[in-house]
Amino acid sequence: MKRTLRQIAEFVKGRVIGDDQVEISGVASVAGGGSQDLVFAENETSLTNALGSSAAAVVANEASSETKSSKPLLIAEHPRLAFSRAASFLNPRINPTGTIHPTAVVHSDSTLGKNVDIGPHAVILEHCVIGEGTKIGAGCVIGPHVSVGQDCDVYPNVTIYPQTKLGDRVILHAGVVLGGDGFGYVRDPHTGKHEKFPQIGRLELGDDVEIGANSTVDRGALETTGIGCGTKIDNLVHIGHNSQIGENVVIAAQTGISGSVIVEDDVVMGGQVGLGDHVRVQRGVILGAQTGVPSNKIVRGKGVIFWGTPARPLRGYLKELATLARLSKKK
Amino acid sequence: MKRTLRQIAEFVKGRVIGDDQVEISGVASVAGGGSQDLVFAENETSLTNALGSSAAAVVANEASSETKSSKPLLIAEHPRLAFSRAASFLNPRINPTGTIHPTAVVHSDSTLGKNVDIGPHAVILEHCVIGEGTKIGAGCVIGPHVSVGQDCDVYPNVTIYPQTKLGDRVILHAGVVLGGDGFGYVRDPHTGKHEKFPQIGRLELGDDVEIGANSTVDRGALETTGIGCGTKIDNLVHIGHNSQIGENVVIAAQTGISGSVIVEDDVVMGGQVGLGDHVRVQRGVILGAQTGVPSNKIVRGKGVIFWGTPARPLRGYLKELATLARLSKKK
Amino acid sequence: MKRTLRQIAEFVKGRVIGDDQVEISGVASVAGGGSQDLVFAENETSLTNALGSSAAAVVANEASSETKSSKPLLIAEHPRLAFSRAASFLNPRINPTGTIHPTAVVHSDSTLGKNVDIGPHAVILEHCVIGEGTKIGAGCVIGPHVSVGQDCDVYPNVTIYPQTKLGDRVILHAGVVLGGDGFGYVRDPHTGKHEKFPQIGRLELGDDVEIGANSTVDRGALETTGIGCGTKIDNLVHIGHNSQIGENVVIAAQTGISGSVIVEDDVVMGGQVGLGDHVRVQRGVILGAQTGVPSNKIVRGKGVIFWGTPARPLRGYLKELATLARLSKKK
Repeated sequence: MKRTLRQIAEFVKGRVIGDDQVEISGVASVAGGGSQDLVFAENETSLTNALGSSAAAVVANEASSETKSSKPLLIAEHPRLAFSRAASFLNPRINPTGTIHPTAVVHSDSTLGKNVDIGPHAVILEHCVIGEGTKIGAGCVIGPHVSVGQDCDVYPNVTIYPQTKLGDRVILHAGVVLGGDGFGYVRDPHTGKHEKFPQIGRLELGDDVEIGANSTVDRGALETTGIGCGTKIDNLVHIGHNSQIGENVVIAAQTGISGSVIVEDDVVMGGQVGLGDHVRVQRGVILGAQTGVPSNKIVRGKGVIFWGTPARPLRGYLKELATLARLSKKK
Repeated sequence: MKRTLRQIAEFVKGRVIGDDQVEISGVASVAGGGSQDLVFAENETSLTNALGSSAAAVVANEASSETKSSKPLLIAEHPRLAFSRAASFLNPRINPTGTIHPTAVVHSDSTLGKNVDIGPHAVILEHCVIGEGTKIGAGCVIGPHVSVGQDCDVYPNVTIYPQTKLGDRVILHAGVVLGGDGFGYVRDPHTGKHEKFPQIGRLELGDDVEIGANSTVDRGALETTGIGCGTKIDNLVHIGHNSQIGENVVIAAQTGISGSVIVEDDVVMGGQVGLGDHVRVQRGVILGAQTGVPSNKIVRGKGVIFWGTPARPLRGYLKELATLARLSKKK
Repeated sequence: MKRTLRQIAEFVKGRVIGDDQVEISGVASVAGGGSQDLVFAENETSLTNALGSSAAAVVANEASSETKSSKPLLIAEHPRLAFSRAASFLNPRINPTGTIHPTAVVHSDSTLGKNVDIGPHAVILEHCVIGEGTKIGAGCVIGPHVSVGQDCDVYPNVTIYPQTKLGDRVILHAGVVLGGDGFGYVRDPHTGKHEKFPQIGRLELGDDVEIGANSTVDRGALETTGIGCGTKIDNLVHIGHNSQIGENVVIAAQTGISGSVIVEDDVVMGGQVGLGDHVRVQRGVILGAQTGVPSNKIVRGKGVIFWGTPARPLRGYLKELATLARLSKKK
């Protein structure tokens, strides 16, 4: 889709210096930008590179507005954010048209909203509700009694267990499994066998949640596992039963969250983080990659970075590492 | 399904104090229990909460039998175990009825036992044997030459490679991959290329094994990978070629077991544990979350907890962590 | 397929001592070898075991050629390599025959080479090109605009996102997801919400790449994620957007590679390794299992082994561990 730079600037609430009628057809990296592409620069070096590139125009910050430029500049408070919004303006979601592939199996008891697309070989079991404008990819298996909101994107080969509820604009990447049984057993002391503790709770995802490929989120044992609005989860993440993940949380790849964990709003976790059962991570905490929080611990401090296993505030942990290195070299 | 408390008590081998004719339709958490629900209490605090809840009756231990109670009590030696059994009594597995969905592809050379359900778009390739009372979910791909026991639950989108053998009552959650090639190569010193070492062994799972969503277990290279009866495996776990996992082992999420590992009976592993090649973990060892055991090591000590990488007995490791913290603060 | 030992020796460029007309039908472990099996021995002990086994013949090294042997020996410079090649000679890939299962959905705009097999319920979306001799397993979902090379093996339930490009002889195990969106967001400082940074780049895999079950590799954000020829990746591995993995790299299970990482040729990584954003691992480095490399670091040293988080050269790290253990015991 082609837009003038002016149209883009209006959409992202920025202003143009230079020719605002230049036509833009896409966004690109500085290295890959072609003659109809918009690129962005966050500092002087990248601005210099951007101006030397083949790109049509550059999103830059207020400080760049004085720069002598051969290209039109789109000045924005947050260039990266404005650039991201420009990208979605230029490449809007392709709206589904209500196409149900003839090989899809949709139970007659289920209800599809307007303009729901269902891909080849997808299966919607009984008593599901799929909201308007949602796309279900090929090979997905959903239900029974699952509720999916509006304008969701469910990529291929996703499985959603019974009774799961999704908000609007949820994105599930390929291979995601939602609502599987939690990992809970009770050992019979006489036989030594592990018997299944009931895993009959539910799973609810808020609006605007995105979950990466092959991640798994379990249903509650007796209650409900929940993921708050706007939370973003990377690939191969595991979230256990009964856990409550807040809003606008960011969880990088391969992180594992055990059962009955509370993660408050705005927490950020690097990759391969592990949280034990009944951990509570308070609002705004940052957990570095591979951090491990033992069971029942509370991690506090908005904006405080933790690292290591067991998790320690970064500054103290780095000091410990330095101490160990020094002592080790002495001998 | 409704049952009287007395019927439940008989099933779980407990005894009722109070009205044993009260009707129970389900189990619940104390917080969520409704007027026909059974809840359980393991200590005084939870008993007080349970008695103050809306639940119909409470499973409690012998010590609680003296408690003055407005609700009928189901007294059991192990309340959590009795509660779990009550749950399965009230919510029994729904037996399959022998329904093969018309979109399923079942090879004519394969043999299905009585009352096998096959979901939409599932694929059973040639020379498979599926035992009586087993359910195969939508989108599963099984075979050829796979043997699945009786009363198994195979959730959607599971893939089982050729020649894998499953016991009875095995539960495979969505996205599980069984019997894939092990990760074994031989480097040609002249070309620097990695050539495939043969991965032509098999995989066998005992009875009552449960494997969580998106976990993967590889076939043996030349021999057989094995998982013993009653072993429970969480989501996103990896088990490598030739490994032998014992009986009643518990393996939490995202743990990785390399090739040719021996895990003896009754071992418990937390999440994100890693075992190197040719490790042996002896009977009853407990490995804390994120523990790493280097290749070729033997870990011994029934009931001994290990933690850290490389794995150390917990007590010593905690002492090391304390020592490091102390030394680091000195400077 | 039966071959004489002589035919095998010619194929693997070794020589036979003893009866070169013995018929061999397969390869096996020493313990499992039957009367028509070839086994291999890398040292004296295993040679003794091999000669005492039921196997028909033994692949052994030059040093073994003087050994008095009741069985014919196939002498090779690298017995394990010769054995692996013998295995592929005896169990060659079964070539596809151009069979498209009637339940597969292949878009008419897509182009299939000669002898492409497409399994039941597989889906090939529009504008894909599948190379000659490639097999696509049941339940796979591919495309649109995906290019798959010749003689590839795509196991069941694999998902390949749009515009991904695969070389020849690529092996993708079940549940692999290629080309999903990278994990990139920009936070709006006013609303606190994470908005999607464009994930519109591509993913390219070279020839002879093998990827294990349920692993995920993301497309680039604006550029291209790349995996070089001959690189082998185990199960449940994550590779993030924009990362460039070199040739003949080996990556064991559950390793996570963040965004914009460069891994040069011949690097070897153990399981559960984690690399932060913008890390560079130089040619020939070896990263032990569970090693963590923080963002922006460069790891150098061909053949040097690193371990720990943050990654340190093995020798120094072991010294640190010993120092800590010693100091901890003092008190």
